[in-house]
Amino acid sequence: MSALSPLAPAGFPELPAVAGVQLATYEAGLRYKNRADLMLALVDDGTTVAGVFTKSLCPSAPVDWSRSILGNGTARAVVCNSGNANAFTGTAGATSAKLTAETIASAFDIDATEVHLASTGVIGETLPDDRLVEGLQNLATGLAPSSSAAWEAAANAIRTTDTFAKGAAAQVDLDGTAVNVVGIAKGSGMIAPDMATMLGFVFTDAAVSPDLLQTMLTGAATASYNRITVDSDTSTSDSVWLFATGASGAEVITSVDDPRYETLSEAVSAVNLDLAHQIVRDGEGATKFVEITVSGAEHDDAASIIALSIANSPLVKTALAAEDANWGRIVMGVGKAGQKADRDALKIWIGDELVAEHGVAVPGYSEERATEHLKNDEVRINVDVGIATGTATVWTCDLTHGYIEINAGYRS
Amino acid sequence: MSALSPLAPAGFPELPAVAGVQLATYEAGLRYKNRADLMLALVDDGTTVAGVFTKSLCPSAPVDWSRSILGNGTARAVVCNSGNANAFTGTAGATSAKLTAETIASAFDIDATEVHLASTGVIGETLPDDRLVEGLQNLATGLAPSSSAAWEAAANAIRTTDTFAKGAAAQVDLDGTAVNVVGIAKGSGMIAPDMATMLGFVFTDAAVSPDLLQTMLTGAATASYNRITVDSDTSTSDSVWLFATGASGAEVITSVDDPRYETLSEAVSAVNLDLAHQIVRDGEGATKFVEITVSGAEHDDAASIIALSIANSPLVKTALAAEDANWGRIVMGVGKAGQKADRDALKIWIGDELVAEHGVAVPGYSEERATEHLKNDEVRINVDVGIATGTATVWTCDLTHGYIEINAGYRS
Repeated sequence: MSALSPLAPAGFPELPAVAGVQLATYEAGLRYKNRADLMLALVDDGTTVAGVFTKSLCPSAPVDWSRSILGNGTARAVVCNSGNANAFTGTAGATSAKLTAETIASAFDIDATEVHLASTGVIGETLPDDRLVEGLQNLATGLAPSSSAAWEAAANAIRTTDTFAKGAAAQVDLDGTAVNVVGIAKGSGMIAPDMATMLGFVFTDAAVSPDLLQTMLTGAATASYNRITVDSDTSTSDSVWLFATGASGAEVITSVDDPRYETLSEAVSAVNLDLAHQIVRDGEGATKFVEITVSGAEHDDAASIIALSIANSPLVKTALAAEDANWGRIVMGVGKAGQKADRDALKIWIGDELVAEHGVAVPGYSEERATEHLKNDEVRINVDVGIATGTATVWTCDLTHGYIEINAGYRS
Repeated sequence: MSALSPLAPAGFPELPAVAGVQLATYEAGLRYKNRADLMLALVDDGTTVAGVFTKSLCPSAPVDWSRSILGNGTARAVVCNSGNANAFTGTAGATSAKLTAETIASAFDIDATEVHLASTGVIGETLPDDRLVEGLQNLATGLAPSSSAAWEAAANAIRTTDTFAKGAAAQVDLDGTAVNVVGIAKGSGMIAPDMATMLGFVFTDAAVSPDLLQTMLTGAATASYNRITVDSDTSTSDSVWLFATGASGAEVITSVDDPRYETLSEAVSAVNLDLAHQIVRDGEGATKFVEITVSGAEHDDAASIIALSIANSPLVKTALAAEDANWGRIVMGVGKAGQKADRDALKIWIGDELVAEHGVAVPGYSEERATEHLKNDEVRINVDVGIATGTATVWTCDLTHGYIEINAGYRS
């Protein structure tokens, strides 16, 4: 494991139990030694489920499996192994995925099509099925109700190059019933829009009909995981689930016009955004958490494309690593995005310092103040492209020697 | 200046004179010390010109200028300064550009609209007009007929972070008349498709009508500069020119059906491809020259997009730097390209070693042989995506600590 990211939170947060969720972890030794590499969440009968998956055209076997059963609308379990992505493993991989679902199904007398699957790690290596099945059987015996310690153990079991375990929670009141939303996630490299090598498992004890739950998760993912980038790469395995157990006793939400929908949706979005930010903070080699806001674009999508063009530029990212207020590279990032921008109306702020406007450097702008801002762990870049009112914010990290050290050695 | 790229050619090539081309360089001290930073090529009256320019929506002042006069079809001169890109410099930048053209025009009693312009270097700083004009006047006095030494001096004067000067030549026989094609170029970082921070100046003493010359250059650029990538970044300044002086005495080519068109076009393409490869060999921090060929795509454009998706992946590039035959990252690159690919028909070769097919690792493939191939300075990756017959080859380099060292310190 690499050293803890300098941008890591002080510690794993205290997370509440989510009624109707039981957790287990197990050290099966599939790839890693001396740590858990299997995670199981068992959810109550009647739990609804939503999912968003990688847009990769070479998805992993567990993505194929989970996507195929998502239409059921309900689920009973989700299983994750770390260290091996079970991606590009052909029919052997599909067999391992099916076997995983069947083993868990058999342990709890549920249907295999109610068991969602995630795998993360190396691509192109088959899983050792015997050890896998034995591990899963042991995993199934270790269930305990969700609790802060259990969430932390689960978040640790799904890590690969992550330097810290990631969890987040929110609590809301739905007409007098306290409802919890808790999520855990993994991801640090190969992180890019349209999902990343990231897995997210979010649970609530609210009750929500499957279609609404899907709308809620899709919206939350668009505003969180699809707005972060570490290195522009997109994985074969990205998946996020939202499970609603209904075990809080709150009445089921079946319409977006139910005011409780908005309340719960905001909590779900907050938890996913918190997890997404933690993933950026664990960006491989990251030393700066960077927020880039583009305004004045033709529409919000254009703003997002421009912001990601800046965020993905290796030249911008290396300048940030060097605390160099080289806003010329930001101009370059705007110019290459392919979206409408008025060069001569462009404004660029580094922190609160307006460094460029009217197509030139601001006369007398303080490079010192801009540089001072860049010495912080958290930095902000704002760009107005002078066309219309579209806006978007994305988050990224800097590009350092650490990224290369980590990625030049991952398999060894 | 950084240390010479390990992928640099043995030395600057011997380049022939091109009839009708005179060259000059001068040390104006605009940014650099103890080296020439101005370059002028004066071409005979009647020279036709073609140009391709950056697609950036924030183009530099010299790009604006040159694009605006390209329609003339003929030109008398091209001037380049290095160290300052005159990009994002507003009206002051436009004034500097006009002043440059007018100063050269006045020195040779030609029209300013016959003077093409290029600037490369830092973005967002205005040029010191007084020193610039004085330098240009001195530059104009130093003209000499093109020769191998003059080409090398010119290629040196246009360098920024380049670790070596870049030149290439070809000679062809057009119905008994020997015709030369000579090009010089600069570029090493911020290199990506649709041009890069690269400048190319290509000259021939053949005679070609302007429209045909443009077709010839556009084709050559598509197959060369637009097929290379160092870091996916695209600059505000990219420009390539092709000047045809006609001074060889060869009859003018006015139709693509003239068999001499194809002969000359092949020579022009070869020179541009050679220059493009040299730019990749000078990729910032590069230690490997990487050729990626994608076949079996829906069409050639799809193949190119997939190949560039692999070539631009930081995870692929860091694995290549580590000589790690991590073909899973190539699968990832195919998957994220957004073009049709059949995961279960995909084939991947590293060098001559078929490492993956039918959606799995090839049983018994030799990781040792694949790794052995990656120890070379020049490596090949072939991917067949199993859809149709589209193919494309692109060239890139690996991503190393050197890239970060160079780019975290460029302005200091």
